Amino acid sequence: MDIATTLGLVLGAFLVFLGITFNVSTFSFHIGTIQYFIDPPSIMIVVGGTFSAVLASFPLSKVMRLGRVVARAFRQAPEELIETLTLIIDVSKIARKNILAIEDALPSIDNLYLRNGLRLVVDRVDRELIIDIMHSEMRYMEMRRDEDIAMLKAFGSFSPAFGMIGTLIGLIILLQNLSDPSSIGPAMAVAIITTFYGTIMANLMFLPWSNKLNAQKGQDKVLREMIRDGVLYIEKGERPEFIEQDLMNYLPPEMKQLYDEMKFESARTEA
Amino acid sequence: MDIATTLGLVLGAFLVFLGITFNVSTFSFHIGTIQYFIDPPSIMIVVGGTFSAVLASFPLSKVMRLGRVVARAFRQAPEELIETLTLIIDVSKIARKNILAIEDALPSIDNLYLRNGLRLVVDRVDRELIIDIMHSEMRYMEMRRDEDIAMLKAFGSFSPAFGMIGTLIGLIILLQNLSDPSSIGPAMAVAIITTFYGTIMANLMFLPWSNKLNAQKGQDKVLREMIRDGVLYIEKGERPEFIEQDLMNYLPPEMKQLYDEMKFESARTEA
Amino acid sequence: MDIATTLGLVLGAFLVFLGITFNVSTFSFHIGTIQYFIDPPSIMIVVGGTFSAVLASFPLSKVMRLGRVVARAFRQAPEELIETLTLIIDVSKIARKNILAIEDALPSIDNLYLRNGLRLVVDRVDRELIIDIMHSEMRYMEMRRDEDIAMLKAFGSFSPAFGMIGTLIGLIILLQNLSDPSSIGPAMAVAIITTFYGTIMANLMFLPWSNKLNAQKGQDKVLREMIRDGVLYIEKGERPEFIEQDLMNYLPPEMKQLYDEMKFESARTEA
Amino acid sequence: MDIATTLGLVLGAFLVFLGITFNVSTFSFHIGTIQYFIDPPSIMIVVGGTFSAVLASFPLSKVMRLGRVVARAFRQAPEELIETLTLIIDVSKIARKNILAIEDALPSIDNLYLRNGLRLVVDRVDRELIIDIMHSEMRYMEMRRDEDIAMLKAFGSFSPAFGMIGTLIGLIILLQNLSDPSSIGPAMAVAIITTFYGTIMANLMFLPWSNKLNAQKGQDKVLREMIRDGVLYIEKGERPEFIEQDLMNYLPPEMKQLYDEMKFESARTEA
Amino acid sequence: MDIATTLGLVLGAFLVFLGITFNVSTFSFHIGTIQYFIDPPSIMIVVGGTFSAVLASFPLSKVMRLGRVVARAFRQAPEELIETLTLIIDVSKIARKNILAIEDALPSIDNLYLRNGLRLVVDRVDRELIIDIMHSEMRYMEMRRDEDIAMLKAFGSFSPAFGMIGTLIGLIILLQNLSDPSSIGPAMAVAIITTFYGTIMANLMFLPWSNKLNAQKGQDKVLREMIRDGVLYIEKGERPEFIEQDLMNYLPPEMKQLYDEMKFESARTEA
Repeated sequence: MDIATTLGLVLGAFLVFLGITFNVSTFSFHIGTIQYFIDPPSIMIVVGGTFSAVLASFPLSKVMRLGRVVARAFRQAPEELIETLTLIIDVSKIARKNILAIEDALPSIDNLYLRNGLRLVVDRVDRELIIDIMHSEMRYMEMRRDEDIAMLKAFGSFSPAFGMIGTLIGLIILLQNLSDPSSIGPAMAVAIITTFYGTIMANLMFLPWSNKLNAQKGQDKVLREMIRDGVLYIEKGERPEFIEQDLMNYLPPEMKQLYDEMKFESARTEA
Repeated sequence: MDIATTLGLVLGAFLVFLGITFNVSTFSFHIGTIQYFIDPPSIMIVVGGTFSAVLASFPLSKVMRLGRVVARAFRQAPEELIETLTLIIDVSKIARKNILAIEDALPSIDNLYLRNGLRLVVDRVDRELIIDIMHSEMRYMEMRRDEDIAMLKAFGSFSPAFGMIGTLIGLIILLQNLSDPSSIGPAMAVAIITTFYGTIMANLMFLPWSNKLNAQKGQDKVLREMIRDGVLYIEKGERPEFIEQDLMNYLPPEMKQLYDEMKFESARTEA
Repeated sequence: MDIATTLGLVLGAFLVFLGITFNVSTFSFHIGTIQYFIDPPSIMIVVGGTFSAVLASFPLSKVMRLGRVVARAFRQAPEELIETLTLIIDVSKIARKNILAIEDALPSIDNLYLRNGLRLVVDRVDRELIIDIMHSEMRYMEMRRDEDIAMLKAFGSFSPAFGMIGTLIGLIILLQNLSDPSSIGPAMAVAIITTFYGTIMANLMFLPWSNKLNAQKGQDKVLREMIRDGVLYIEKGERPEFIEQDLMNYLPPEMKQLYDEMKFESARTEA
Repeated sequence: MDIATTLGLVLGAFLVFLGITFNVSTFSFHIGTIQYFIDPPSIMIVVGGTFSAVLASFPLSKVMRLGRVVARAFRQAPEELIETLTLIIDVSKIARKNILAIEDALPSIDNLYLRNGLRLVVDRVDRELIIDIMHSEMRYMEMRRDEDIAMLKAFGSFSPAFGMIGTLIGLIILLQNLSDPSSIGPAMAVAIITTFYGTIMANLMFLPWSNKLNAQKGQDKVLREMIRDGVLYIEKGERPEFIEQDLMNYLPPEMKQLYDEMKFESARTEA
Repeated sequence: MDIATTLGLVLGAFLVFLGITFNVSTFSFHIGTIQYFIDPPSIMIVVGGTFSAVLASFPLSKVMRLGRVVARAFRQAPEELIETLTLIIDVSKIARKNILAIEDALPSIDNLYLRNGLRLVVDRVDRELIIDIMHSEMRYMEMRRDEDIAMLKAFGSFSPAFGMIGTLIGLIILLQNLSDPSSIGPAMAVAIITTFYGTIMANLMFLPWSNKLNAQKGQDKVLREMIRDGVLYIEKGERPEFIEQDLMNYLPPEMKQLYDEMKFESARTEA
């Protein structure tokens, strides 16, 4: 779990809440002010309208994965690199003795890309075909990530637009009913609320989430490249020492050091 | 049929309708409010102006295909992958026995790219020329899709602009006739309606539709690449098992599984 | 002549005119309203200012070709593909008998790229040099088209900016002279007119025109590639049937069919 | 000297001046109006603020070259192509007789890239090293041009931002002092002036200048490629006729014709 | 230390301070005006909200490096090129005598990329592996720089958004409490302050800083390429003269001259 995205969302929401309720001149909270900012029809137009536009923008199967896509923004990826490298080395040691023995290890492997790749090795699939299959899977995963990011970006760009549409609706109704001057202010306030919702949705939720997925993309690519190389080395029956030395180049410098320390410690423990 | 785009459009329109007519304080519908939002000259300026700008932006032949382009956004593509793969395998089995026998199957093939490709095989056209012709067709289809997307994007960017032009016209006329203060409000409301129309057109229609076509682009490319490879394997007289194994790499992982299950079931049925 | 751009411009201008003069409540025309939208100093600032900014943005020689660049947006390109292919085949037939006999056909060839290419063949220039020269000409034509599009885009982005500059000038003068309240409305109206001009110039003229040139770019590139291949085949003394078969791949699918029909008809006429 | 940029700047400034001082209803000039548009603190905030932001954006050495970068936008490049080609041919004739005799010609060569390249030839530097050195110089010149354009674009995007900052400052002070209604208009006018300055700075100065440098980039690249090829041909002792024929492909078509005419004329004069 | 970024920030802040406090009509300072521009809750919303959005956009480890990333914008890079070249030459001289003697020099080398590379040479690591390791490190450093720039850009784009959110909050509260007309002005002023903060944060801080890091990127890439080539030459035992001649091509032209002068001077001093 990466707490950054959760933290950012909570902190941002809290600050907006503070900005709404805290009165600096009297240095006190006016919780009542929060009622000015809650307007169910406005929520309906902005959230519903944005969702409608996104629904119209992507295949249904894609939109139905929204929950999982957003959840990805909240989870952490990087440590997997070291864990996965360790796992590959362990598997390669088993494979050197008896390649079919890998099969017992498969169910415990969480990473689907690695598990599928190793299954191909166990099934003695032709090396060329393994390369093709793993390349095809990698291509699809990257296409999917790009689509995920595109969907979150679509949310981020449609929400201010529907915020503006809500404000335009409010303004038009307001301008057609100017008879009672005292009601103009509150009516205007309500009209503006949709713009407020749309801006919050874009800048505190969907744009940061699409940024996050974008930042993960590079790391995921490195992880997959490492797995692909690892599987092919195992298929070839390469020595674990060589695999380790070569795959370590996929680790960022500071992780390389961490990995060395871990190995040293585990060696000491073993000894 | 992919219902997502239809659903998104209907849902979005309904929510905007609700936003206009539903009064939260009295918790009742005011259908009358809808009249504030219907103004034929405003529709004329925004829809007509946007269409004029798009007409001036593309060759006439392109603009006349608008209906078909929009219709594409409403239809589903992905299942074709499995159907087309099955079709290619079936044809390859026929071709192994007698390559000329494919001809009888041609009329029943809906996908034009596949049908044209197979006709070349039946006509015993030189392999190199088949590659050239299929590559040329693919290039043109991609150019056409890119132009389709560009046209929908042009609609999406010109409609808010003509919404603003309409509002400017309304404002200028209004400001020249300020004598009657009571008419300012409604006149202003009418002036703003064009901006409302332009924003709705862009965000509930043309931008989602261009997004949708963009999302289909990648899938269509995969489909065409699979067809091209399939046709060339058939021309070469390759074994159906090999073709299947190789082309399955064009399926996304979850479809691969679906395809395996389908095959298993049909095998059981046959047995 | 492609009427789309002309039609779009005329239709758009007519709709704006209608939007200004047609009064929906009285269902009558108020031609007098048009005077609110004609303000020579505003035209001067927006048109002149935009032109100044474009003038400062490109070499003088480029800006002086503005008329020709805009004219390109109004003319049609695609049919040339078939005509040019027919022409290349005809020339290749002459060349098979006597390559020097092409010279007589040169003056009647409109397309400069084709004419220059064939002249090199007639002059028995070295094949490698023909490739170099045709490649260099193609590169320059593409650079020029890109510059043309950049210039129209510059018009499209500077015109709203100078519309805003005009409005700012009007607003500043207005705000300094608020003594007479009754004049505020009309003065404000005049201030806004420049924004109206700038938006119209961008969205009904220069942006559609740059879109149009952009749409033509792909087609022109295909045409030039076909010509280049054709000239090199003629230089090599290739058979007309082969040239036709190969160059037909440059035609979009529906043109290919059209071309086949034309050929069939002309063959029947000849027979 | 290319007068386009100078002309555009002068014409634009004149039109803005006219737009400010010319009163169309009385058809007379009100030079006094110009005072509404001159406000030293506003100039300070916009010009100074924009400069500060650019200063913070680039290394000091880069910002100190601003004068030279802007000057580049005002000078003409294209004729150099023909002059440089003529020069290379002349030098190649000298080199054929005695390669060391080039040295006497070096001081008269203005183009640094050509002069440095020829000096390497005179110094009998290894051909491979000449290629490396010229490639490295070309790379640095392109990096520098890209940085120049980036700096002008930064000016163009920071100036409207600081215009807006100035207006916000004015508005905040104004809103805190609403006691005297008669002063609101002029105070508002002054607040808006910074936006006016920022927009003018961006659209009449820095954006056109960055466009201009961008337009020159392509031409400069062609010039440098021609020089590099020329220097390498001279080093190789290639025949002047061959060099001319090959390098002429770097000329745009219409210059090629001009060059042929010049050569013909000079040949006639010589004869 | 590059003073440009510090200077720009200080100068810009000073000019904004001047714009706020200096009254041009009375030609005096009104320090009191500064109080209109200091509003702690507004600072909290804009700074806190922007930080929250960035926190939600990147992994926690990335955001925690913010201080170091900003610090990079304030430090100078270019001179390192000459110093590093000199260092590489010095090391290559040692290496020619005894490659293991490099080890003593390692602790004094500041540049980590160079130090790590040389350590590999000392450790007699296989040449192919050195290439892989250095390539992997370079790839990670470039990924990291791109992420750094993306983070600063995210600050630059979220800060105006949270400025607008703050203003919307202020406006909504204000519009709901219009009973006391005299308080409207100041309340509006306070509402606008967040927009002011957001614009300043983006245009005087984060956008210039991201520009600066972007400008450094090219130079850093050149430096790393030079180091990589240098380390590989040293591993190969290449002659110092050759290394110097080849690596000098990584210096920009004006540095090359500076380097020649320095070398000449040091040669004279030695003599």
